Amino acid sequence: MFGRRLFFVARVPAPRMTKLTYSASISLDGFTAGPNQGPKQPLGVRGELLHEWMRKLAVWRKAGGLKGGITNANTKIVEGDGQNVGALIMGRNMFGGGPGPWPTPAWDGWWGDDPPFHLPVFVLTHYKRKPLICQGGTTFYFVTKGPATARKLAIGAAVGKDVAICGGSGVAKQFLAAGLIDEFTLHLVPVFLGGGVRLFDNELLSQVRLKQVKAVEAPGVTHLTYRAEHRSRSQHRR
Amino acid sequence: MFGRRLFFVARVPAPRMTKLTYSASISLDGFTAGPNQGPKQPLGVRGELLHEWMRKLAVWRKAGGLKGGITNANTKIVEGDGQNVGALIMGRNMFGGGPGPWPTPAWDGWWGDDPPFHLPVFVLTHYKRKPLICQGGTTFYFVTKGPATARKLAIGAAVGKDVAICGGSGVAKQFLAAGLIDEFTLHLVPVFLGGGVRLFDNELLSQVRLKQVKAVEAPGVTHLTYRAEHRSRSQHRR
Repeated sequence: MFGRRLFFVARVPAPRMTKLTYSASISLDGFTAGPNQGPKQPLGVRGELLHEWMRKLAVWRKAGGLKGGITNANTKIVEGDGQNVGALIMGRNMFGGGPGPWPTPAWDGWWGDDPPFHLPVFVLTHYKRKPLICQGGTTFYFVTKGPATARKLAIGAAVGKDVAICGGSGVAKQFLAAGLIDEFTLHLVPVFLGGGVRLFDNELLSQVRLKQVKAVEAPGVTHLTYRAEHRSRSQHRR
Repeated sequence: MFGRRLFFVARVPAPRMTKLTYSASISLDGFTAGPNQGPKQPLGVRGELLHEWMRKLAVWRKAGGLKGGITNANTKIVEGDGQNVGALIMGRNMFGGGPGPWPTPAWDGWWGDDPPFHLPVFVLTHYKRKPLICQGGTTFYFVTKGPATARKLAIGAAVGKDVAICGGSGVAKQFLAAGLIDEFTLHLVPVFLGGGVRLFDNELLSQVRLKQVKAVEAPGVTHLTYRAEHRSRSQHRR
């Protein structure tokens, strides 16, 4: 009936994919903390230098209830960080409490009655525990089945927003090598620490394919964002 | 006689300081070559990926006598590289010949009668040898007294231009840890090699103070330039 077939191309915006993200300040020699970490110097020798670019910002000071500080090209980076985050993942150390089973009665971590997260937080641990519901919208869920499961549960809880790995380069390393991180930002600081906690030291990383997303030069730091794609990612996906 | 003193400020341009420079393509996990380097893969497994951004450039192909290639934001970087260089420093391996004393008659290296350097080249070696004068302006000088002496001699030969460390991350590592490099550029490539030759793996680096000079985002690579200042630099200076 028609001499020519008609093709219609409907332009429907693609649904936004939830990303698992990570960001860290890192020295030029690749460390996220200096040597000899301990209670007196949790970031190791000279590790505090990694965060100087951030600590002097007004936006950062304000978040901690402090006045003063400066505004520069880093302000926008800090403001953007976490803006679209719907759930967090952290390690047992960051939640609070040492290794081993939970004490009885269970200790409720470092963060007090009203933790600053105001989001669902998925804590990786080897020991089962019921969710801990806090004031202000923070609920800690304890995941014993490993990073892929934590990813899956957190993505579900983030309802369309992103999931961020929050602190703990040990946890980030584990996720990255397993191909579970989608996008990460390095705040590359012009300092050599000479030793400490190296972020990228796993031969499994060679299976991760990277794409440079953007590089932003700013005072005392360069912000580098990469997309990560893992060969075996599909097996970890929902 | 004068009620007010008069001050004259003469604006004389500061004399240009000769810099010792180094530049290298490096993976995001910090390697300048991949694992398992050998005659068949001099850059190790997947190490060639570090130079892809450069090899596709018209300016790079032209330098090697090839036609074609592309022009992008990387072109300017490659064009600028080496523009103000008056002398080079390299290791014995890059000049040619294995370890140990020079054979008799002495072998004249990889580079043929007319080496592509057209500059004085200072070769670090443990074994004395007379200078080797080649066609086209290249003369190889053999330095047995270590990096600080090589630096001093090369700066003298560069007559006001810069000195570049040319290839050999082993040599660059030695100079950097000893505080002998003034400025370096990392061509940071979005790839993980998972192993190989790590550029920054020395605790002495913690004595080097860095200053971020610039960051340039370009297709498939980010160019990061740093100034380096060493606590004990003065003792190495002329």
